[in-house]
Amino acid sequence: MRTLGILGGGQLGRMTALAALPMGVRVRFLVPEPADSVSDFADVHVGDWTDPAVLKAFAEGCDAITVESEWAPAEGVMEVCPEIPVWPHPVTLSAIRDKGTQKSELTAAQLPVAAFELPQTLDEALVAAEKLGYPCLIKRRKGSYDGYGNATVHSPDELRAAWARLAQENGALLEAFAPFTHELSVLVARRADGEHVFYPVARTEQRDHRCHAVEVPSRFTPDTDRRAHLIALRAVEILGGVGLMAVEMFLLPNGDLLINEVAPRPHNTGHYSIEGCETSQFENHVRAVLGLPLGSTALRAPHACMVNVLGHRSGAPFPRAFGEGLEVEGAHIHLYGKEEVRPRRKMGHVTVLGADPEEIRTRAEHTVSLLQL
Amino acid sequence: MRTLGILGGGQLGRMTALAALPMGVRVRFLVPEPADSVSDFADVHVGDWTDPAVLKAFAEGCDAITVESEWAPAEGVMEVCPEIPVWPHPVTLSAIRDKGTQKSELTAAQLPVAAFELPQTLDEALVAAEKLGYPCLIKRRKGSYDGYGNATVHSPDELRAAWARLAQENGALLEAFAPFTHELSVLVARRADGEHVFYPVARTEQRDHRCHAVEVPSRFTPDTDRRAHLIALRAVEILGGVGLMAVEMFLLPNGDLLINEVAPRPHNTGHYSIEGCETSQFENHVRAVLGLPLGSTALRAPHACMVNVLGHRSGAPFPRAFGEGLEVEGAHIHLYGKEEVRPRRKMGHVTVLGADPEEIRTRAEHTVSLLQL
Repeated sequence: MRTLGILGGGQLGRMTALAALPMGVRVRFLVPEPADSVSDFADVHVGDWTDPAVLKAFAEGCDAITVESEWAPAEGVMEVCPEIPVWPHPVTLSAIRDKGTQKSELTAAQLPVAAFELPQTLDEALVAAEKLGYPCLIKRRKGSYDGYGNATVHSPDELRAAWARLAQENGALLEAFAPFTHELSVLVARRADGEHVFYPVARTEQRDHRCHAVEVPSRFTPDTDRRAHLIALRAVEILGGVGLMAVEMFLLPNGDLLINEVAPRPHNTGHYSIEGCETSQFENHVRAVLGLPLGSTALRAPHACMVNVLGHRSGAPFPRAFGEGLEVEGAHIHLYGKEEVRPRRKMGHVTVLGADPEEIRTRAEHTVSLLQL
Repeated sequence: MRTLGILGGGQLGRMTALAALPMGVRVRFLVPEPADSVSDFADVHVGDWTDPAVLKAFAEGCDAITVESEWAPAEGVMEVCPEIPVWPHPVTLSAIRDKGTQKSELTAAQLPVAAFELPQTLDEALVAAEKLGYPCLIKRRKGSYDGYGNATVHSPDELRAAWARLAQENGALLEAFAPFTHELSVLVARRADGEHVFYPVARTEQRDHRCHAVEVPSRFTPDTDRRAHLIALRAVEILGGVGLMAVEMFLLPNGDLLINEVAPRPHNTGHYSIEGCETSQFENHVRAVLGLPLGSTALRAPHACMVNVLGHRSGAPFPRAFGEGLEVEGAHIHLYGKEEVRPRRKMGHVTVLGADPEEIRTRAEHTVSLLQL
């Protein structure tokens, strides 16, 4: 029996475990504090994951270790148990953590990203912004996600205010605004030996900087999908990604694609694959990091649509009445075991499969509205 | 958040938990001794389940309780916590546990079963066997399953020998041999209010008295399927079944159907539904016992085939190398977390979906052969 170690205990770890267990792969978690989403599983270590002794106790007996986010202490675990594979490799995680480094590596490989600058000081930032043009984006190099640590600035004054809030010891990332018409993502599952599989290009929609809906297939042109796949694979290879990697992109009015960012882990834009694909992103993540053969990513239905279930209330306990949502035909409701509802908290998602993309989108949105979180 | 209590900890409990958790339904197990198949889950009570205090500690906080087999102490848990629903109801389980009672109730409802007798003594059995004709079957009224506690007898001498081995305080069940051409099963998920859904009729194959393979749809005539559905629903209603119930039947050369037996729980012949149906038997079991809306049982592919993975070795630890099996296209490998391989032990199963029933059967059998348990 194999055991997979996971650093982290949110919904991604939960869904990874739910994909590992049917194959007879055991899962062990390490979390810095008790975590609702993995509290249903037996083998959860709670401890200070900056402590080498905690890491060693966790790692021993694992066949491979993976992370739930790029911020998990992959280096630390590799130091205490160098004989156990850690995927993605800490070098990959390190490049991805710093958005400046990530963009620099992608650019060096001729991959398309929005024009960017890496000013160290406010004076450099003001010069950089003139070069990029207003409005432009300022982002923390480390620790920005889902709209946190980012700002769009329209003038030097706004830039000064944002700089004071966002700049870190190595400055900040300034990015030209990409006037995209659509957003999309490509998931790649890749093993250490380079074997890989693609998922279909997903059309993604953000609301308030968070993933709202995902539709597959993309309904872009075959040429767009082909280019998106090539760009995603190249990005994953350049970064040495092993496991499930997600590459988010912008589609511009002229048809060009720009990489927005790379996530070294199963991704919100791939949750539809649990029902939608022959092998889910979570199962292929498990297979990839354990060096097992990868499974088919073929769609199980002509179209799949996923809509996120976000919290809308504050401090409320998880409601018991999702019955009405379950009545929607073909709606697959996933809830992440989080006991407390909070506004904007990712509480779950709904996936619907079918022949008509508009209809399944409507049904998914309707189901979410019935859940009343 | 709802919590479902399960009395028992084998693969059926494991797969029920794996269907409950994605919906945010928590699962608690009670097992008389540590059980590999549920050792991956957090909330496992290990204790003497004939002890009311153990049952009470287990039951408190559950929204409903179900059983993994008809032998679990459903009555006991109902006595200590009468306010918590137990499904199937102990009355249903009681009728099913005793094969004599089960057949009597089905016959009283005009449902077709093979001719049977319930002799209390050997002398009565010898008379009954003459009436039924040799060969006939003798079965323990309680505790026979998967070929255990059963015998086919061809003569009074064989009957005498089998009686000495199998008869219990209330005698034994004698059954006419049914010269069936096929075996089949129908799964019904039914709620306490009578709402129910059917699964497609499954063509089943036993080898050495254990489920070997299941193919869906049955490829019998539409009339046979229609009659099988009617018989199954009536049987479940007569027995007051709530939750997932399986009705196994024989198809005779003249097209008649006979009920072989009823199982008050998710069933080996329904494992294909995890990938094969929009809602698996395990998910609908969870929904039914919690009183939630039932999900669609529509097939996700034209055909589905499941083949069981049985142990072939003795005392061997679980092998780590299932890689070759994972390479078979479209093969979904399920392993039940059992650390020790034993001959005939149910270790897992393989499901393949596709357009051609022969081809997917071949692929499923091939995958099983590669697992080398």
